[in-house]
Amino acid sequence: MTMNERHPHLMKIIIVPLLFVAAAVAASADEGMWLYNQPPRDLLQERYQFNPTDAWLEHLQKSCIRVNSGGSASFVSKDGLLITNHHVGARKLEELSTKDRDYVRDGFCAHTLAEEIQCLNLELDVLESIEDVTARVNAAVPKEADPRAAFEARRKVIAAIEKESLDQTGLRSDVVTLWQGGAYHLYRYKRYTDVRLVFAPGAQAAFYGGDPDNFEFPRYDLDICLFRAYENGAPAKIAHYLRFSPGGPRDGELVFVSGHPGRTSRLLTVAELENVRDRSVPFQLNSLKRREVLLENWSARSGENARRAKGMLFRAKNGRKAMDGRLAGLLAPDLFPAKAKAEADFKARLSATPEFSEALAAYDKVADATKTLAAQSVRGALLEGGQGFECESSGIARTLLRAGEERPKPNGERLREFSDSRRASLELDLFSEAPIYTDLEKLTLADSLTFLATELGVNDPLVQKVLAGKSPRDRAAELIDGTRVRDVAFRKKLYAGGADAVSAANDPVIELARLVDPEARALRKVSEAQTEAKAQAHAAIARARNALLGLTGYPDATGTLRLSFGVVKGYEENGAAVPAFTSLGGLYARASEMKNQPPFDLPAAWEKRKSRLNLGTPFNFVSTCDIIGGNSGSPVVNRAGEFVGIIFDGNLQGLTWDYAFSDKQGRATSVDSAAILEALNKVYDARELAHELVNGQRNR
Amino acid sequence: MTMNERHPHLMKIIIVPLLFVAAAVAASADEGMWLYNQPPRDLLQERYQFNPTDAWLEHLQKSCIRVNSGGSASFVSKDGLLITNHHVGARKLEELSTKDRDYVRDGFCAHTLAEEIQCLNLELDVLESIEDVTARVNAAVPKEADPRAAFEARRKVIAAIEKESLDQTGLRSDVVTLWQGGAYHLYRYKRYTDVRLVFAPGAQAAFYGGDPDNFEFPRYDLDICLFRAYENGAPAKIAHYLRFSPGGPRDGELVFVSGHPGRTSRLLTVAELENVRDRSVPFQLNSLKRREVLLENWSARSGENARRAKGMLFRAKNGRKAMDGRLAGLLAPDLFPAKAKAEADFKARLSATPEFSEALAAYDKVADATKTLAAQSVRGALLEGGQGFECESSGIARTLLRAGEERPKPNGERLREFSDSRRASLELDLFSEAPIYTDLEKLTLADSLTFLATELGVNDPLVQKVLAGKSPRDRAAELIDGTRVRDVAFRKKLYAGGADAVSAANDPVIELARLVDPEARALRKVSEAQTEAKAQAHAAIARARNALLGLTGYPDATGTLRLSFGVVKGYEENGAAVPAFTSLGGLYARASEMKNQPPFDLPAAWEKRKSRLNLGTPFNFVSTCDIIGGNSGSPVVNRAGEFVGIIFDGNLQGLTWDYAFSDKQGRATSVDSAAILEALNKVYDARELAHELVNGQRNR
Repeated sequence: MTMNERHPHLMKIIIVPLLFVAAAVAASADEGMWLYNQPPRDLLQERYQFNPTDAWLEHLQKSCIRVNSGGSASFVSKDGLLITNHHVGARKLEELSTKDRDYVRDGFCAHTLAEEIQCLNLELDVLESIEDVTARVNAAVPKEADPRAAFEARRKVIAAIEKESLDQTGLRSDVVTLWQGGAYHLYRYKRYTDVRLVFAPGAQAAFYGGDPDNFEFPRYDLDICLFRAYENGAPAKIAHYLRFSPGGPRDGELVFVSGHPGRTSRLLTVAELENVRDRSVPFQLNSLKRREVLLENWSARSGENARRAKGMLFRAKNGRKAMDGRLAGLLAPDLFPAKAKAEADFKARLSATPEFSEALAAYDKVADATKTLAAQSVRGALLEGGQGFECESSGIARTLLRAGEERPKPNGERLREFSDSRRASLELDLFSEAPIYTDLEKLTLADSLTFLATELGVNDPLVQKVLAGKSPRDRAAELIDGTRVRDVAFRKKLYAGGADAVSAANDPVIELARLVDPEARALRKVSEAQTEAKAQAHAAIARARNALLGLTGYPDATGTLRLSFGVVKGYEENGAAVPAFTSLGGLYARASEMKNQPPFDLPAAWEKRKSRLNLGTPFNFVSTCDIIGGNSGSPVVNRAGEFVGIIFDGNLQGLTWDYAFSDKQGRATSVDSAAILEALNKVYDARELAHELVNGQRNR
Repeated sequence: MTMNERHPHLMKIIIVPLLFVAAAVAASADEGMWLYNQPPRDLLQERYQFNPTDAWLEHLQKSCIRVNSGGSASFVSKDGLLITNHHVGARKLEELSTKDRDYVRDGFCAHTLAEEIQCLNLELDVLESIEDVTARVNAAVPKEADPRAAFEARRKVIAAIEKESLDQTGLRSDVVTLWQGGAYHLYRYKRYTDVRLVFAPGAQAAFYGGDPDNFEFPRYDLDICLFRAYENGAPAKIAHYLRFSPGGPRDGELVFVSGHPGRTSRLLTVAELENVRDRSVPFQLNSLKRREVLLENWSARSGENARRAKGMLFRAKNGRKAMDGRLAGLLAPDLFPAKAKAEADFKARLSATPEFSEALAAYDKVADATKTLAAQSVRGALLEGGQGFECESSGIARTLLRAGEERPKPNGERLREFSDSRRASLELDLFSEAPIYTDLEKLTLADSLTFLATELGVNDPLVQKVLAGKSPRDRAAELIDGTRVRDVAFRKKLYAGGADAVSAANDPVIELARLVDPEARALRKVSEAQTEAKAQAHAAIARARNALLGLTGYPDATGTLRLSFGVVKGYEENGAAVPAFTSLGGLYARASEMKNQPPFDLPAAWEKRKSRLNLGTPFNFVSTCDIIGGNSGSPVVNRAGEFVGIIFDGNLQGLTWDYAFSDKQGRATSVDSAAILEALNKVYDARELAHELVNGQRNR
């Protein structure tokens, strides 16, 4: 599963709070991505007689890591060792690889600190505290402001809160919008930016079974990657880290998942969900399939092409499979009638009482805003979302252009990604020395210019200007050959020099971004205002709902730390039982069943070391914990707070959890901690790492 | 290149005659897909001092074969031996293959007549005569009839002409619409339906380099397949067959291609071409990429899946690469301005003379009809074109349903595919014992039902009826599990029993076809009338053009026999010369360069037999002959009428020949006859076949 994807330019689908839906469902299953400051104590007590102490919660919270480029992780040693998924770390492996040294394919193992390799730009965030700032945010927004003015007032106060917090604490400070505008919480993070690669298996072990087995179960994947956080040139001293359980979890055991689910859409109104089904998802699927075909075929042309495109291709295939599953869920005959009935029932209650007339009317406001957003969604995705100009150079060029324009403005009036509190992260990203391949840049840019021309029409005035009288292929070649943004020193110079330096550089890709920017910004402005309009409408619905039902449940996922719980549990499929666990021996059986043909061929190291292994060791397992993309790399812990596994996937039936949770068949998939130890010890000869995991510290 | 695709349900893009464009271009290059009854004698005389005799033309014409399922071929022995491409024959190889015997992958060689294997349903047509019936067709259409009435009158007279001819001669008789309605010619064919497989190389030799090298040059493909036509249980006695040249052609030599180009769009008006660029091609590309992703990933799940889907996947990939190339051509900055200028210049001439006012007005009529067709094109493609119900069962079910309704009608009033003259071919196809795989049927049907639902909207009343309250996947499974149309005896019973038997069967897939049919037929009716309206408009333009410029040139391709000419000639690319020929030795060099990784791995037989081969033997070559999809398998002959090669592809630069010919870089790609002999003798130990080719008859 991918949620390790960051799309800084993508216009996000707006999510609306229909709290009663969440509350209704939560009662019947171990559903929920709970806030750490509103944990599900009653549910845990009632169902599992478990009452987490504040210390238990704080320890788990502070052991968890947000991988800023997308994904989750956790500390597992007081010496800064941390574990995430291979597919979360893969982008860093890619950046460190060259034609002759392919860490993604071949893996890596540092047997000493000296062998650990510093990543090019990797930010890890650990949540230190949460503060409710809802009252201050809302107080700053005038009651009668129109949506655009309200948006600007809200942006301004949020930027001020973040800046104050950063100045006072030195911690990264993000105000998070919860319940689609029902609440605003300030999250403060400790940042780690010196992160070094410690261990990765080869891709074939990490992603055994490839696309065919992705989102399936049974599975046999060692989808892990170990890094170490450093401070001042030495391994960071970590107070909160998870004790590693050598034995893993038992079948039926209560377990917790603590991580950073990216985005769910469980609380949409029917009108919004219809838009997702009829427009957003089909459009994204179309783009993903287009990209998959492009990269698959380019990769087939040479081994080096395949290496260069591997991560991007994986993300396209992974996204496509997830999105196909979601569309299937949206087309399933039960989903919409249930949503529609719940909405109709609630509206009926609203219409019975005059004081809720505003809430009732809010549904139409949401529908209107949805319609306005839908009307510009394709243009928005192409121009502001960047899908018409897909390549690293375009993204960098626009950041430079906008940085020159935004940075002189007051903090509270800038596009949010240029606010003071986000500056360090933005610069880390912008000045990354990660390699950029001109052939791949031309390939993706030419394809997306073609997409732009066919979607908006060749005769569209902006398209004509973008293509400048050339074919998409020739124009892409000219742009990529002509730009200097691949040179980090050049980026630094322009960033420091501001708008004048950016203009003077006369760089073709920056000038292309300048050409597009007025319309892109205009689209974004409309989007921001409509989003605010929706938020206000939903706030009205939320107020009515709180009055009628009381506050309960959990908000839709927002890429911030959440706690889920559930049990290790198999399921039934096509009349047959699917057990909760696979074993290391199952890997060999699967390879044999599939005649050892790719993507089911045994990784060489595993073939060689078979006789050493205890084949009965649990390998992967499923649980009913509520997860979504972004949870990749989340630790699975038991009541004792011990690390018993790591989330790396969900099954196909769980793909619809974006819209509605069900544990009938849907499951979260993890690597068992026992398999991690067995593999490190016996397949990879990484005994010192296994020792560090078991002891919670390096061998001294 | 694929043109061996038949899409009986696809609404075809309408093509309009702008004769002056063809004429203008023809003057500057060896352009042209010439009619056998209007050969380019003057051009050949003027440029190459070559004057083909009537006997030369007749011999070539009658040596050529149309593969009714798509593609071209030619006789090369008096004993019925014929040669086509591997990718043309592949569908027949697939139908004869099973899980344990894969002729596509492993190839086949019959060393005796007894070893030859009868194909399940393969019709070969040899053109015996051409008769101009324009006057009779036009006389039957009342001058003042509206488009629908005109269409019906024209359909009626064409059916009558075909039926008369069939009854009189026993030959398959097709009236062909040329110049988009400017002329109607009756083509009579001798049919061969007992066709046996003689030789095929394995797919890796036939399609070496796979998708990456498809439409590229240099190439190293043995893309051939040998069959033998039988009559009365013995090899057919063939009067006209091509003498096989053991040496192949020389660089710079004049050569001819005689085959069945499928469809070109060189004579569209600008309005029509814009529709192709902005709607038809993007829509088709979207469908092809969707299908490629679906089948690629299903194929990766097991070797048997891959075998079952192989042909379909090849066609999707091949079509996608061709269509991507065409779109690039349509987006190239020179194509549209040139077309627009030519049209504007001609319109200016028309407007200068009042007698041409009808021709001038005709452009608007074409544009109006194009607009009407565009407005229903997606619904048309999904419902009448069958893209919403992709699977063999759906096609068979609809044929049975419509046969029951159409066959009782008078011949001249039926949907054209049910006319008496097409009956034998239709029945050959309908009663084929070719295997149908339920898993693949469910896969493609579920995917296309999803496509239908997202394109037309889930709430579309017809979509609701089609899905019947189920998810696309469940509905597809229910339909495929429930249908009996895979049983040929069942098909025969329903076909013989007519509409009552079809109704009584209550087969779920037939009932689905019945549900869709009223709207599908209505869409087709609109399409037929608009097509007629366009044809009438274009006839007016053509009359004006003939008056102003005189009749010359060749009509757009229509899947019927055409003669092209050109020279064997390399080209320049990125500043480097691409020689006209590759050699057998080049195959080994290419494999080595690509580290022998798929799809560049050497075929096992070629690896083993390398030392036997004369590595200097020419392998593939390019020429300036004007071809398009459908020409696959066309013989390349020299002035002496000898077989010197076989067309199997064009290069990327030739992909825009659909819209405009240019021999600046565009080339047709062939297998050299010398390579065929060398491979048969030394790689495949098929000496008796090599002997038959060289001697034009079997060894006796």
